[in-house]
Amino acid sequence: MDSKALHKISYGLYVITSKKGDRFNGQIANTVFQISNEPPTIAVSINKQNLTHGFIKESRVFAVSVLAQEAPLSLIGRFGFKSGREVDKFNGLKYELSQNGLPYPAEHVLAYLEAKVIQEVDAGTHTIFIGELTDAKVLIEGTPMTYAYYHQVKRGSIPKTAPTFIQKQAEVTVKMDKYVCSVCGYVYDPEVGDPENGVPPGTPFEKLPGDWTCPVCGVGKEEFEKES
Amino acid sequence: MDSKALHKISYGLYVITSKKGDRFNGQIANTVFQISNEPPTIAVSINKQNLTHGFIKESRVFAVSVLAQEAPLSLIGRFGFKSGREVDKFNGLKYELSQNGLPYPAEHVLAYLEAKVIQEVDAGTHTIFIGELTDAKVLIEGTPMTYAYYHQVKRGSIPKTAPTFIQKQAEVTVKMDKYVCSVCGYVYDPEVGDPENGVPPGTPFEKLPGDWTCPVCGVGKEEFEKES
Repeated sequence: MDSKALHKISYGLYVITSKKGDRFNGQIANTVFQISNEPPTIAVSINKQNLTHGFIKESRVFAVSVLAQEAPLSLIGRFGFKSGREVDKFNGLKYELSQNGLPYPAEHVLAYLEAKVIQEVDAGTHTIFIGELTDAKVLIEGTPMTYAYYHQVKRGSIPKTAPTFIQKQAEVTVKMDKYVCSVCGYVYDPEVGDPENGVPPGTPFEKLPGDWTCPVCGVGKEEFEKES
Repeated sequence: MDSKALHKISYGLYVITSKKGDRFNGQIANTVFQISNEPPTIAVSINKQNLTHGFIKESRVFAVSVLAQEAPLSLIGRFGFKSGREVDKFNGLKYELSQNGLPYPAEHVLAYLEAKVIQEVDAGTHTIFIGELTDAKVLIEGTPMTYAYYHQVKRGSIPKTAPTFIQKQAEVTVKMDKYVCSVCGYVYDPEVGDPENGVPPGTPFEKLPGDWTCPVCGVGKEEFEKES
């Protein structure tokens, strides 16, 4: 069995938000899809370990924000590589509220979809929440961020709780001078640099400014290890 | 509520195949996604009206073929706009068999995934079949066909049984000289022509060869109506 066949499945990239009392939380997910048209229902697959999972279980509502292709890694890192158990992910973020009072980022989001849970499916490590749409809005026109674009162009990394996370195996090719963030798995590639944060292509890891931080999860250079 | 927000969700495009006794059938679907990694499970959403739905219910196995971006409209039309109740969709098609004896098209497919059903979820018009992978293979390298690409570049049409089918509303802009296939909804746009079948861009509908047929569902010119 060649599990790389799984990598050929196409996904978008979304921020899933929910609430518990007056607390908000959100996370990145790639498995969002429409289930039926009449009434309009959508489904999301959420890892049971995630805080957002508990919030949806309790509030029975969630919102899906469709990220724009040009969304910065920092926005994905904010929702994808930090836990709401440790930080308030909305602290310092510009956001708006949907009809049911769920937050969505005010920038880099093409559209949001808000739903109330009508069914949940236990799928092992994940729960599939099926929700009937209660509100939906197109915010700006643009191209949606896809999972493929995120990996190929943005060189993003995958959290271990994602359904599509695959342990690196013997197939990893040894290349010199790339550095991996030990917290989130982001790979700094000197050939690419970090243009979003003013680091031009061709900048070796050693020449990065002392205050440079991981563009995904925000930790310092000392958390990086040479890729082996 | 703006249902156009649903159009911002990203999907791939797949042929889902199953069997019943020694009969094969298959259909196009866009809602395929990985659910968990250990064990690897995938899910597909299938309209209950479709013949493939009954085949999966009975055989408890299905295969997903990931279409290549360059797959011709005729392959999509074969599986998406004909019913296995009327035709044998594999008649005249080059195909191979997976480990469990499920067929997949031998050409224009990047990879196949074969699964046995471990759970099914009643989701109104559709059933979500969750399956554990039993076989998977990458066949050729290439870019997967996405639903967005199919619509924007290939100008494909959507069958009414797809979860993402939306009735055309007042938003349709009247443009002269486009013709719509009354069987499958494919739109012939003279500015685009039908290059896959030797019709160059700029060819008016009236100048199409007499034996030209709909590239998606195969009916003749007489089934087309001027777009209104």
